[in-house]
Amino acid sequence: MIIVTTPDATEAQIQHIVDRIHEWGLKTEVSRGAMRVVIGVIGSEDVIREKPIAAIPGVESVTPVLKAYKLVAHEFRQTESLVKIGGVTVGGKEVVLMSGPCSVESREQIVSIAQDVKKAGAKILRGGAFKPRTSPYSFQGMGIDGLKLLAEARAATGLPIITEVMDTKDLEAVAQYADCLQVGARNMQNFSLLKEVGRSKLPVMLKRGMSATIKDLLMSAEYILSEGNFNVILCERGIRTFETYTRNTLDLNAVPVLKKETHLPVVVDPTHGIGLREHIPAMALAAVAAGADAIMLEVHNNPELAKSDGEQALMPQEFADLVARIRRVAQAVGRE
Amino acid sequence: MIIVTTPDATEAQIQHIVDRIHEWGLKTEVSRGAMRVVIGVIGSEDVIREKPIAAIPGVESVTPVLKAYKLVAHEFRQTESLVKIGGVTVGGKEVVLMSGPCSVESREQIVSIAQDVKKAGAKILRGGAFKPRTSPYSFQGMGIDGLKLLAEARAATGLPIITEVMDTKDLEAVAQYADCLQVGARNMQNFSLLKEVGRSKLPVMLKRGMSATIKDLLMSAEYILSEGNFNVILCERGIRTFETYTRNTLDLNAVPVLKKETHLPVVVDPTHGIGLREHIPAMALAAVAAGADAIMLEVHNNPELAKSDGEQALMPQEFADLVARIRRVAQAVGRE
Amino acid sequence: MIIVTTPDATEAQIQHIVDRIHEWGLKTEVSRGAMRVVIGVIGSEDVIREKPIAAIPGVESVTPVLKAYKLVAHEFRQTESLVKIGGVTVGGKEVVLMSGPCSVESREQIVSIAQDVKKAGAKILRGGAFKPRTSPYSFQGMGIDGLKLLAEARAATGLPIITEVMDTKDLEAVAQYADCLQVGARNMQNFSLLKEVGRSKLPVMLKRGMSATIKDLLMSAEYILSEGNFNVILCERGIRTFETYTRNTLDLNAVPVLKKETHLPVVVDPTHGIGLREHIPAMALAAVAAGADAIMLEVHNNPELAKSDGEQALMPQEFADLVARIRRVAQAVGRE
Amino acid sequence: MIIVTTPDATEAQIQHIVDRIHEWGLKTEVSRGAMRVVIGVIGSEDVIREKPIAAIPGVESVTPVLKAYKLVAHEFRQTESLVKIGGVTVGGKEVVLMSGPCSVESREQIVSIAQDVKKAGAKILRGGAFKPRTSPYSFQGMGIDGLKLLAEARAATGLPIITEVMDTKDLEAVAQYADCLQVGARNMQNFSLLKEVGRSKLPVMLKRGMSATIKDLLMSAEYILSEGNFNVILCERGIRTFETYTRNTLDLNAVPVLKKETHLPVVVDPTHGIGLREHIPAMALAAVAAGADAIMLEVHNNPELAKSDGEQALMPQEFADLVARIRRVAQAVGRE
Repeated sequence: MIIVTTPDATEAQIQHIVDRIHEWGLKTEVSRGAMRVVIGVIGSEDVIREKPIAAIPGVESVTPVLKAYKLVAHEFRQTESLVKIGGVTVGGKEVVLMSGPCSVESREQIVSIAQDVKKAGAKILRGGAFKPRTSPYSFQGMGIDGLKLLAEARAATGLPIITEVMDTKDLEAVAQYADCLQVGARNMQNFSLLKEVGRSKLPVMLKRGMSATIKDLLMSAEYILSEGNFNVILCERGIRTFETYTRNTLDLNAVPVLKKETHLPVVVDPTHGIGLREHIPAMALAAVAAGADAIMLEVHNNPELAKSDGEQALMPQEFADLVARIRRVAQAVGRE
Repeated sequence: MIIVTTPDATEAQIQHIVDRIHEWGLKTEVSRGAMRVVIGVIGSEDVIREKPIAAIPGVESVTPVLKAYKLVAHEFRQTESLVKIGGVTVGGKEVVLMSGPCSVESREQIVSIAQDVKKAGAKILRGGAFKPRTSPYSFQGMGIDGLKLLAEARAATGLPIITEVMDTKDLEAVAQYADCLQVGARNMQNFSLLKEVGRSKLPVMLKRGMSATIKDLLMSAEYILSEGNFNVILCERGIRTFETYTRNTLDLNAVPVLKKETHLPVVVDPTHGIGLREHIPAMALAAVAAGADAIMLEVHNNPELAKSDGEQALMPQEFADLVARIRRVAQAVGRE
Repeated sequence: MIIVTTPDATEAQIQHIVDRIHEWGLKTEVSRGAMRVVIGVIGSEDVIREKPIAAIPGVESVTPVLKAYKLVAHEFRQTESLVKIGGVTVGGKEVVLMSGPCSVESREQIVSIAQDVKKAGAKILRGGAFKPRTSPYSFQGMGIDGLKLLAEARAATGLPIITEVMDTKDLEAVAQYADCLQVGARNMQNFSLLKEVGRSKLPVMLKRGMSATIKDLLMSAEYILSEGNFNVILCERGIRTFETYTRNTLDLNAVPVLKKETHLPVVVDPTHGIGLREHIPAMALAAVAAGADAIMLEVHNNPELAKSDGEQALMPQEFADLVARIRRVAQAVGRE
Repeated sequence: MIIVTTPDATEAQIQHIVDRIHEWGLKTEVSRGAMRVVIGVIGSEDVIREKPIAAIPGVESVTPVLKAYKLVAHEFRQTESLVKIGGVTVGGKEVVLMSGPCSVESREQIVSIAQDVKKAGAKILRGGAFKPRTSPYSFQGMGIDGLKLLAEARAATGLPIITEVMDTKDLEAVAQYADCLQVGARNMQNFSLLKEVGRSKLPVMLKRGMSATIKDLLMSAEYILSEGNFNVILCERGIRTFETYTRNTLDLNAVPVLKKETHLPVVVDPTHGIGLREHIPAMALAAVAAGADAIMLEVHNNPELAKSDGEQALMPQEFADLVARIRRVAQAVGRE
């Protein structure tokens, strides 16, 4: 950690800063420039990361040297983590396709879509039973009944299931049916939920919040790992910017950055990321080229009657066509 | 709702759109321009707000005419709502000051600060017992013990208490001690929590999420009201923008906009909003001038040893000085 | 254009709105809902696009139906425009590589880099002679001397030149040497400059401003086309968001959106877009997969001594390796 | 400047970094932590601010200690600068009102509005003759004729004039009529223009760009001062964020921050900042409470027929009412 003093910091203030740091069991190295004094702090930053050093009179800025995340960092684990969902490995050479409808709506709907996406090449089935909706008047998901229908779709196709858990009180029920838990963008900093899924034995896919920086996402993943669950997948799904043409701004820059910073696999969700059906294929291909380990895509067999997100769902045939194109790009970048 | 078709929409597509709307029990009015057809939908928009009309072939854009929020809207209730916290009314002529430390740390700390802020003019005591922290390694709050200390501070000063609830499973415990529940920015779209606090009898202060639009905030408040709890206060506490000098960008524009759109009282939290101690007074004064009904300010008696947010806490004397200045501005804009 | 009235609009106000529109030579169609009146405006929107209809009492919102841009729109020209720079066509089946240093620094530097990038597969040479720099104390470019060196590099390699023009007063000089003019992100809404390059016979590459929406970019291009110059290429180069890990947020979503909205070719500049040397290749590949017509990449033969942007320049060998990978992705998406 | 190395930096790389810095004539101080080495650079940062140190192998991050701006900084000039426009001083105890229409439209219009705003208390007349408009099909201003009408309005009222200059080639003409030059938000990083107005003898009001950080704004002002013109006023006029309810997000946080960082006066433009007529008064009052030295407000005598920005112009009577309220808030914060 590096502390820079204000130009008008007094000697007494500088001494007070140094004393505080020594109290906390760390060493200091003081360099005096023409205008400002720089105090290097030597020792474990963890001890003082949370100390309000900026509140000490005479301090102008505090810059950490070490990263706040540990377990998720590549420095902690050099090799790439492989996360198993059912029998499917995410994070290996294969670009895994996760697909299915936004919401589970009926047995016929989810089984039929599951069969379609399996046939086209998807390896994991997605579908929401508990739905976070902006409006209280919107369809809120089928709840437990939806989970049961997902299990039927799994039985019919063999595809493992990923589905969202929105609240600690639902976790037990969701965990009974899911092969992978999803923590949604709006709950990325629901720390109670992060701790609970950290105690679960199931893999967890953590979606980036709409205004979360890449570091925020990694810190939220750190919550899960710090509770003992290392089976975490990170999902880029679009951030909120000033651009209004697209629903969100899918931030593909996050893909190579995350692959460098962390050993955890990275999924990209172009459906929510750009939110415009006709442009989803281009973003899915770009995500693969950028290095994504998996792609999540919403598919619906009758989008114009879908109970949620119909305007951004691909039709099964569109999905099948896209899979063929994804395959070619995956091969071009040395993936399967 | 107004539907505009693409320039190449066929007659069959236009007819299909019209048919769908009629199926849903609504009327249409079709205007034909040179390039595009405009279809006005007449009847209750609620029926079709959630329908994925944009997924129907031939649709270029869909623009709602009515607002998605109802109960929170000024159109629903013309007069301003007054929310009572303990014996204190928020939303009336008086600009109410809510003050206290970021976190409850000890009996001595909370009682002493409560006495200080009461003396200076605060009417409500804030203090966190359950703390949402970016890092799992940071102080997570004292939990139930913190709630008990808050109750002691209330007993010592008579100030009603506002404190955060982070999870549905903690709600019962928090509700036992709090006079007002706080839903934090990171949980603004934790819809499970919103529903539960909506079933509570306690007033709720809902903080705007870092990337929440004003409409998102109103929709989240709508969740609470739709469960029967109309005692809701909205809190502007800074949004995330590209600017990095300040911790967040306190969006005072939201104050007059919210006062127009909703009957609910509006609080401003300059502490988190700008996040720089020396600039908090300027933003507090500006918030009052902009029309805020209450101001929330963090105060700590020893910021440089605070367990959280010390770098943005005011000292008791600074707070007292600020109260005098707030009073002058409040009077200048016809408040107390 | 669709006008929605406020709930409390009076009949007199509604009539006044209608009268105004009739005055301007257009027709209206009035639909009355339960709460609001919707007034459809029929006729050319251009006539009233600039009228401050929202200033008329009783108006709640005004929604245009037609797009504000015309000449750049696909509706104006159905086929894709091909823009010729020297003998190189941008916008066809080939993904064109534009490459070179940020700034021209010396004869040796620019000629050597030009030879390197040509050998690796670049078709157009970039290099700045007039440099827009945040600080007045930074290297401001070699000016006319830099232009002359660019011309020497062209003579030595046959590569056509693209270089920035920052001011109308420099246009004549730049146009004497350049094969393509570049208007930088900071000048995207320098409308005087846009008009002047619109009167030039040279092709123009227009970079998206850091906070420009896709529509803003198209409107700025419209300025150039409206002066008679249709040889315009649009460049996505990163927008400003809350994310600070990357220098900017390269917005690849803009690629498919622009390809749909306009007939103009689209270039992507991953160098400035992500601004981190090690991650530029991933974003270049993603840009090709997303559908870019050309990729602009900064290359320097000695980045650590570069006079500008050294930290984001590729070394010639890194560039050559990337070209091979770009080729594979281009082929995978049906390009060359 | 503080350089932190990567965890895997070799001794040779570290030595190379140190050698480079010594080559540039500066000293180093090397501290070795457990994982990373920290290299403090001692001496004038200016020498190496522009060096691409991040491009040197083994460097993880580079953090400047000193600010990049000098002449604009409070460290350069301790007292507040007073800028004289005609006979009016901006930056003193009085909160100065600058007012007038968006565009000059006719003699009758500008003279009449000038008289109205003078009567209400404005001290400076604003009005655009050269207008930066998003669309080439919008009214582009009256140009030189507009300048002449402004001069007539000055003759009629005695109010000094502030008006925008958009291009270096227009500067001479504008300077002939204006008492203060305005550089608009879209030209905040038009560095050619900044240099030219820096050579002018007239005061300059520099508006913050829509995506400019506070530091960017100060760096752009530094351009003007570095050419010898210290009569610069900074103007906050709203930044671009994800919020779409308001036209821009007026960033009042910038007011106290600028007042701390620089000696230059700060103006706030609530008209463009929030862009909604009914909410302009609240933001004007808030701006005064936040510490603004001047407020710029657009006034039009017939907004619904204005040629630009009619939807956000105040009527003369609304302006007069607001002036009375501004006066009360100004007094409450110790201004006039």
